[in-house]
Amino acid sequence: MPSHARALGEVPGSSSPFDRVEELLRGSGHAAPIGLHRGRTVFGPCARARTRGSGEFGFAADAHAPPGGVPALRAALAQAATARRQSAVRPEQVLVTRGATHALAAALHAILREGDEVLVLSPQWLFANGLIRAAGGVPREVPVFLELGAARGFDFAGVVERAVAPGTRAIYFNSPNNPTGYRLDGGRLGALADLAERHDLWLIADNTYESYDFTREGFLDIGAVGATAARAFSLHSFSTTYAMPGAGVGCLISPPGLTEPPAKWSQCALRSVSTPAQLAVYEALRTPREELDRRRDHAAAAGWLADSTLEVPHTKPSGGLYTFLDLSAWGDGERFVHRCAELGVGLAPGRGFGAHCGKGARLCFTAEPPQRVAEAIERINKIYGEGFDEH
Amino acid sequence: MPSHARALGEVPGSSSPFDRVEELLRGSGHAAPIGLHRGRTVFGPCARARTRGSGEFGFAADAHAPPGGVPALRAALAQAATARRQSAVRPEQVLVTRGATHALAAALHAILREGDEVLVLSPQWLFANGLIRAAGGVPREVPVFLELGAARGFDFAGVVERAVAPGTRAIYFNSPNNPTGYRLDGGRLGALADLAERHDLWLIADNTYESYDFTREGFLDIGAVGATAARAFSLHSFSTTYAMPGAGVGCLISPPGLTEPPAKWSQCALRSVSTPAQLAVYEALRTPREELDRRRDHAAAAGWLADSTLEVPHTKPSGGLYTFLDLSAWGDGERFVHRCAELGVGLAPGRGFGAHCGKGARLCFTAEPPQRVAEAIERINKIYGEGFDEH
Repeated sequence: MPSHARALGEVPGSSSPFDRVEELLRGSGHAAPIGLHRGRTVFGPCARARTRGSGEFGFAADAHAPPGGVPALRAALAQAATARRQSAVRPEQVLVTRGATHALAAALHAILREGDEVLVLSPQWLFANGLIRAAGGVPREVPVFLELGAARGFDFAGVVERAVAPGTRAIYFNSPNNPTGYRLDGGRLGALADLAERHDLWLIADNTYESYDFTREGFLDIGAVGATAARAFSLHSFSTTYAMPGAGVGCLISPPGLTEPPAKWSQCALRSVSTPAQLAVYEALRTPREELDRRRDHAAAAGWLADSTLEVPHTKPSGGLYTFLDLSAWGDGERFVHRCAELGVGLAPGRGFGAHCGKGARLCFTAEPPQRVAEAIERINKIYGEGFDEH
Repeated sequence: MPSHARALGEVPGSSSPFDRVEELLRGSGHAAPIGLHRGRTVFGPCARARTRGSGEFGFAADAHAPPGGVPALRAALAQAATARRQSAVRPEQVLVTRGATHALAAALHAILREGDEVLVLSPQWLFANGLIRAAGGVPREVPVFLELGAARGFDFAGVVERAVAPGTRAIYFNSPNNPTGYRLDGGRLGALADLAERHDLWLIADNTYESYDFTREGFLDIGAVGATAARAFSLHSFSTTYAMPGAGVGCLISPPGLTEPPAKWSQCALRSVSTPAQLAVYEALRTPREELDRRRDHAAAAGWLADSTLEVPHTKPSGGLYTFLDLSAWGDGERFVHRCAELGVGLAPGRGFGAHCGKGARLCFTAEPPQRVAEAIERINKIYGEGFDEH
């Protein structure tokens, strides 16, 4: 066999971090194990992939879409981004992507040179570090989200700024945060904008959970904060917002001065996104605001129930679909996750979310109907109590 | 604006090489210009993206597909590849991709280190060089396809072998060839297999036009030739085979020893392919052989008509959807293409298919119904004749 690429050596394997949990769940003997390890919701899709184009969409679903996306969809997404940021976003800044993964990959490939460092506000999305490595970069985790919840006087801006090194090129963050459920408010986004300006860094905002912000302030895109539009990439996941993981479409909003490199990379990676999936998103954009609010309220209620019944220390979500359990007093996080799986409850092992997260586990409170989540939490509490008895 | 990636600097822009031709067509004043510049067929899709999974598919169309592809589809594709190669291909070797573009990108990223050279048997697919550059490699065009048709005693193996340099890592070829319609027969594939073995190179076979091979020998996959299975990547395009460019699914068959790197890269680029699109391909795999044969015969007949009526020197297709016009006697290829567009006929400018192809143009003889193709050829012949009158 000839030699092959080294670049992917540090990228995690393609097997799922949930394989072991699912294997244990299957072997648990429970007829219907309660899987709270995957990020998902019980909601139906807001629209489905269709094969007949609408007149307004102006594009046959059977035809190959242009690289950046079907024009009518790009225009609609630019309009939505303009409203969200309250400043003009042009359709050329919008790249329709195969989900948030492809959007993040396109942004990273557009900005990184070999060995450039990306600050990853941590805990972070399971695949963020792998994507940074695959793009030739080096992820550097900056633990902030757990600290935001734990310590009232936590110096967020100071911690992030002290992590900036000469090789730092960008800051990536996901807010509302997977896996903690914490969010960066306007003040903290402002602090990020400020330090990005002073150190000339790119900002990459992963807005996957934008429609699940429980606060009165509501969701704020980094592009709407200060003068960040020239240095901010925003990722959006319609898989999450409109509960359409099958179609799996997202988008990347790039700074006006850097629209060509992500488009080029994307064209070389996959040409364009499946047309029926784009058509489904075009339809989903018409989902009434009330329906999205209803779903957000359902998630907030599920989060509140989890928060008020869990006897394991955990984060108190103000957005997103997750709470992160702190198992450090119990002992080993991985052992706890395996014990839960044996008793028919799936949790996501913590270490995938950051090097400092091995003693935690993620619970998705929207992955099953409320009654089932409650049942799972009862079992989790029991196992947590037993652990202490054993010690 | 902070600095950004240099790697994409040499990748062609994201605008289409057909933009100028289409602009001229729109301005031509013809109510229905005849577009033979795009690669496409008049056939309807063999299946359409659906949102309800079949029992056999075993996967909900609304759910996120696993990174390598839905298991039932991978298994079916492995079975098809086993039959094609007459040697076992395991499902792990199959990566379901977003079309042939994503398949080629995954293979290139799996094998290339920065600066590695890829021999591109030329003329080649419009985007091949860009994909190689985006993966950090250096494309080196080796003109062979036009020579295969022109010179009976052409030393194919010798020409390719003399192009091999110390930095050469792979050979990429597309047969039946876009844009010439020529193909590599068993003897030539054997010669490639032999020299890949001697120089320890990867082979990347772009099988996009596998279902459009007009010869009695029929289509032969490089993986079925000699002992190449350990060093051969095969790309397949279901967009082309089943006329489903909207769904846009393809696959990559990797050597048994190198299945993990393409899967890793793919997971970091887009996670997985849209589930409804995978379901559509699963259905399309059941298209009766007779229907595919009928489409192939339609293409062969259209190719024969083009061949027998064109008064411009051109390649004599033995497969694929194209013939390549030789405009060197007329003068400038680009000017000819523009003149045709002004008269309502779209051709693809030659230079995108190779540095040595500027005096040519590609004609897709399946892009419109036969009567329209015939009408376009009449106009092309007239323009060609006028050119000489002017000289």
